[in-house]
Amino acid sequence: MSNKFKRAALATLLATPMAAVPTLGAAQDIEVATAVPTEVGYILTTFLFLVGGFLVFWMAAGFAMLEAGLVRSKNVTMQLTKNMGLFGLACIFYYLIGFNLMYPGDGWTVAGVIGAFAPTVLEPVGVGADATDLSYASVGSDFFFQLMFCAATASIVSGAVAERIKLWPFLIFTVVLTAVIYPVQASWKWGGGFLDVANFQDFAGSTVVHSVGGWAALTGAIILGPRLGKYKGGRVHPFMGSNLPLATLGTFILWLGWFGFNGGSQLAMGSVGDVADISRIFANTNAAAAAGSVAALILTQLMFKKPDLTMILNGALAGLVAITAEPLTPSLGQASLIGAVGGALVVFAVPMLDRFKIDDVVGAIPVHLFAGIWGTIAVVFTNKGATLGAQLYGILVVGFFVIVASAIVWFALKVTMGIRVSEEEEVNGLDMAELGMEAYPEFTIG
Amino acid sequence: MSNKFKRAALATLLATPMAAVPTLGAAQDIEVATAVPTEVGYILTTFLFLVGGFLVFWMAAGFAMLEAGLVRSKNVTMQLTKNMGLFGLACIFYYLIGFNLMYPGDGWTVAGVIGAFAPTVLEPVGVGADATDLSYASVGSDFFFQLMFCAATASIVSGAVAERIKLWPFLIFTVVLTAVIYPVQASWKWGGGFLDVANFQDFAGSTVVHSVGGWAALTGAIILGPRLGKYKGGRVHPFMGSNLPLATLGTFILWLGWFGFNGGSQLAMGSVGDVADISRIFANTNAAAAAGSVAALILTQLMFKKPDLTMILNGALAGLVAITAEPLTPSLGQASLIGAVGGALVVFAVPMLDRFKIDDVVGAIPVHLFAGIWGTIAVVFTNKGATLGAQLYGILVVGFFVIVASAIVWFALKVTMGIRVSEEEEVNGLDMAELGMEAYPEFTIG
Amino acid sequence: MSNKFKRAALATLLATPMAAVPTLGAAQDIEVATAVPTEVGYILTTFLFLVGGFLVFWMAAGFAMLEAGLVRSKNVTMQLTKNMGLFGLACIFYYLIGFNLMYPGDGWTVAGVIGAFAPTVLEPVGVGADATDLSYASVGSDFFFQLMFCAATASIVSGAVAERIKLWPFLIFTVVLTAVIYPVQASWKWGGGFLDVANFQDFAGSTVVHSVGGWAALTGAIILGPRLGKYKGGRVHPFMGSNLPLATLGTFILWLGWFGFNGGSQLAMGSVGDVADISRIFANTNAAAAAGSVAALILTQLMFKKPDLTMILNGALAGLVAITAEPLTPSLGQASLIGAVGGALVVFAVPMLDRFKIDDVVGAIPVHLFAGIWGTIAVVFTNKGATLGAQLYGILVVGFFVIVASAIVWFALKVTMGIRVSEEEEVNGLDMAELGMEAYPEFTIG
Repeated sequence: MSNKFKRAALATLLATPMAAVPTLGAAQDIEVATAVPTEVGYILTTFLFLVGGFLVFWMAAGFAMLEAGLVRSKNVTMQLTKNMGLFGLACIFYYLIGFNLMYPGDGWTVAGVIGAFAPTVLEPVGVGADATDLSYASVGSDFFFQLMFCAATASIVSGAVAERIKLWPFLIFTVVLTAVIYPVQASWKWGGGFLDVANFQDFAGSTVVHSVGGWAALTGAIILGPRLGKYKGGRVHPFMGSNLPLATLGTFILWLGWFGFNGGSQLAMGSVGDVADISRIFANTNAAAAAGSVAALILTQLMFKKPDLTMILNGALAGLVAITAEPLTPSLGQASLIGAVGGALVVFAVPMLDRFKIDDVVGAIPVHLFAGIWGTIAVVFTNKGATLGAQLYGILVVGFFVIVASAIVWFALKVTMGIRVSEEEEVNGLDMAELGMEAYPEFTIG
Repeated sequence: MSNKFKRAALATLLATPMAAVPTLGAAQDIEVATAVPTEVGYILTTFLFLVGGFLVFWMAAGFAMLEAGLVRSKNVTMQLTKNMGLFGLACIFYYLIGFNLMYPGDGWTVAGVIGAFAPTVLEPVGVGADATDLSYASVGSDFFFQLMFCAATASIVSGAVAERIKLWPFLIFTVVLTAVIYPVQASWKWGGGFLDVANFQDFAGSTVVHSVGGWAALTGAIILGPRLGKYKGGRVHPFMGSNLPLATLGTFILWLGWFGFNGGSQLAMGSVGDVADISRIFANTNAAAAAGSVAALILTQLMFKKPDLTMILNGALAGLVAITAEPLTPSLGQASLIGAVGGALVVFAVPMLDRFKIDDVVGAIPVHLFAGIWGTIAVVFTNKGATLGAQLYGILVVGFFVIVASAIVWFALKVTMGIRVSEEEEVNGLDMAELGMEAYPEFTIG
Repeated sequence: MSNKFKRAALATLLATPMAAVPTLGAAQDIEVATAVPTEVGYILTTFLFLVGGFLVFWMAAGFAMLEAGLVRSKNVTMQLTKNMGLFGLACIFYYLIGFNLMYPGDGWTVAGVIGAFAPTVLEPVGVGADATDLSYASVGSDFFFQLMFCAATASIVSGAVAERIKLWPFLIFTVVLTAVIYPVQASWKWGGGFLDVANFQDFAGSTVVHSVGGWAALTGAIILGPRLGKYKGGRVHPFMGSNLPLATLGTFILWLGWFGFNGGSQLAMGSVGDVADISRIFANTNAAAAAGSVAALILTQLMFKKPDLTMILNGALAGLVAITAEPLTPSLGQASLIGAVGGALVVFAVPMLDRFKIDDVVGAIPVHLFAGIWGTIAVVFTNKGATLGAQLYGILVVGFFVIVASAIVWFALKVTMGIRVSEEEEVNGLDMAELGMEAYPEFTIG
């Protein structure tokens, strides 16, 4: 089930439980015992969304810890505040606007391009079987699951623009991203819009989620400019992360959450085939992450003579992003290779970005954008239904839209309220300047 | 399913799977395929308790991290030790005494008021379908789930009385709280006691869990007195938390665990209606937390000109506490409003407590007590079955009981072994004084 | 279901859902409604593996945090790098070699002793009910679940040999451990090999997982020798952990993961009896951990006059290890006692190891080896099918094999590339010497 849209896909989803019905007509037949009752299928798929959803929720903590660990201690409170704030706002605006914009069903405002405008309404309390379409899952679980993807997209941005962006402009960008930019482009594929019609394939969001966060981050990082002193005197000055255990914890959290991200995107658990597919997805997702981290471990040893932990962490994440567009069809070996290439990309891309003086504090652009593009292209190697043309079309269309939309928002914010703190504030740290609260008041040395 | 008691509620719970039976009488009917077999319902509800239970278990880590992050580094080892100790003791005493005191079934010692006295006995190994009441869930899963609620209640207390209480008196208080105080009052509602008969509504424990922890904390904080220097010279001296990423991590952990806390309190997953309700609960729980955090973000910006991360964290938690009394009936918009009011309460209540010189180190009283009261009252706005009278009655009865019982225990401990460390020990930090072990021996400055 | 092997055990597993078939023959019978359809059983057991598997995955983060918190800050980046590296390599080599070596089915290379050599192949995408053996679970989920046990075994080793071992020799040891040593001995029991035939009982791996990690760690710690200065002048010099909240977090993570570790080892969730057993396992696992921590709390208070947090953490873990060989048959009281003895063992064993100048940085040997042996023996107290003779036989056979195999690998590495950093590097810390990257560049004092 490489397709994620809610209502249009029901016909296919329906096929699975209904296949049991003819068998049941012959009721005495022993085969009756093997079928999955329709209501059980509904319960199982709904529960998949809930478990998958809480795992993807958990990724919000992962992003917060990863980013807090990779910035300098004088900017940690700010990074935490941004992550809390963006998540809260994403929840509110995806509810008010995003969800129905992304999944309009038959209610497109512009067919296949712009969805419907309405806040989310859940099914009634104590809904009975009669009142419910039993072929899919509860609306509440679907909303809960999809909301977390939207929030993850926003989380990607915050790391890249860290240590110099003001709080409120960032949060306002988040609102536009989660209310409009993310849902609109996601509707094109997962809402059954024109990219879906064009056979663009993206199982769990290498493009729809990760590259979108990546493009928004790239646009922001360019418009914002690098941190003071980062490229001083024509050389790259590395700013070391203040707390590597925290960054490692964040990576493990994200890795854990990704099982829900990719596994839940099967969107069905009411048949043997579906749950076996979810199992493949879990195993492949893990294999890609492992291979991505090992690729970065070996490459940094070979290239720099010393393994680089932050590259290893980002290598694992890049492996995860790379497998996300197609975690189902690869074998374990293919999944490992796809992940390893993702991890390798990070090792090569970080210095490349520095050459262009694009200052991405946590490596979000290599991880989410470059590995996202790679993963979207790699679909064609294992999924016979995918074509290179359609994949490139999807990547370019989404990229163009997000770059333009993000740039408009970033520039509007720059012109109106400014997006960057003053030089003095940046030097002293955003925590004291914008928040008046240190993350580690007793630890840091003068 | 707003009712949590184990055995008395079985009649209602039974209704759901049994509804399938008449249909099944006409066995050739195609409708057979849609029904949930009774054993499947038992498995699904049991699994709900296990997943919900491990999520609520995880909240123990959340409390530990939140509190360790918000105390000063000289008291961190102590705070961790308290959290480990209280959890272990809660497990032992809820098993030995609490569970059957809370859920006496037909075995009340004093009908509706005092439950049964007996350690918990689980069902036999390899229990067959015949030996089991298939209309609910396994005893083991129920015990596991309920135990975690009891432990959470104790965790609430430890934050408020931090940085000056001695270890062992605190742990002894925990024993009484988890063996007696919590289970007795919980039996009044969730064990089918007199508050349940009086139509008091508390779905997952805004009053039964959170306000109980809050009242015990308030009583303890008053009897213990404020930390040295906190209100010196008539001014409030803020003591900054030593590790805000840890506090943020703790908040995310608690937020994650809350999906199990509220979702598992549906107490059934064997029907379409139940799982759809659980989905609503997940979505509403998340919405309330998000709105609570955003409310605190905006209010602290407006009131103090700078957003306050610790208020934002507590705002999210207050939103969670507020929605806990009724996470099912609100719409997403109503849940957001209920959570936002909870978050706002924190912003206003923290200075208010300071005015009364009640020193609550982590904000446990605003979060768990005030937001718990608010959430219990707010039930009447969305649940037509609730009345303001019954809600206030429940709040007052539980409050009165917990204040009196806690005060007796705190005073008894104060008189016998003392509850507060010496001034010198408090100044030097509890870690060295009581434990001889620093949490961060290499970090802290002189 | 105390037996874990994949294919040979299918006959027994089959019994459960098939028991429903005769009832179904009489199709009009109302009892039809209570049976679990075979496909539903397959889905539920598969999902148990996925949920159990992601919980055990999460233990990798637990080990990383525990160890990072217990080493000195100058060695933290190294400890994190080792944990990331070992996990990635374990995933690759368990896929390439380990899984089929452990679970050869009918394809033993040497019957009952050496399994099959082949990389893991998952079931096809979209596998239909017809193509699948519906009596168990998906291969993908089984592989995913078992992989995490293999990785956990490797994680155990890294803590004991911390702060002086070189990165690459350690990682090479990990490869041999996860590709060969762990799978070979695991096949003896869980693959249906000679230890299984001999009635050796180990439900979830007190011996098969924990003692294996423990023996490998012990062998490594002895061959490597203690850290510089640890036993200087005939006295034991304690080196304090640099970050106790991190160590506590790691313990909570491991505790959480253990529900998947032990609960998932039921290997079936498609019947009332199985899910009731899983519930017992959850409750008992938790009780043992709680009792282990409380035992260490009380004992350290009595023996040293001050509770010792690191002992309490290790006490909880030892309780978990001890209950792992038989988490199903004990009552809650018995589980608590088994865990308490485990926790007590830690308190007594840590000084004992020091007496032998075996320097185990994090206490991995008492926790995983000693408590693992204790737990394996304790099976006979509650499981009537177990005999002391068979238990001791299993412990000794596995211990002998792992010591010999590990010693060969450690010595080979020592002779060829060296396993220990230079004295200067050890004094300066492994982070700067081997990685050039500090974990907390802004915190540590000169």
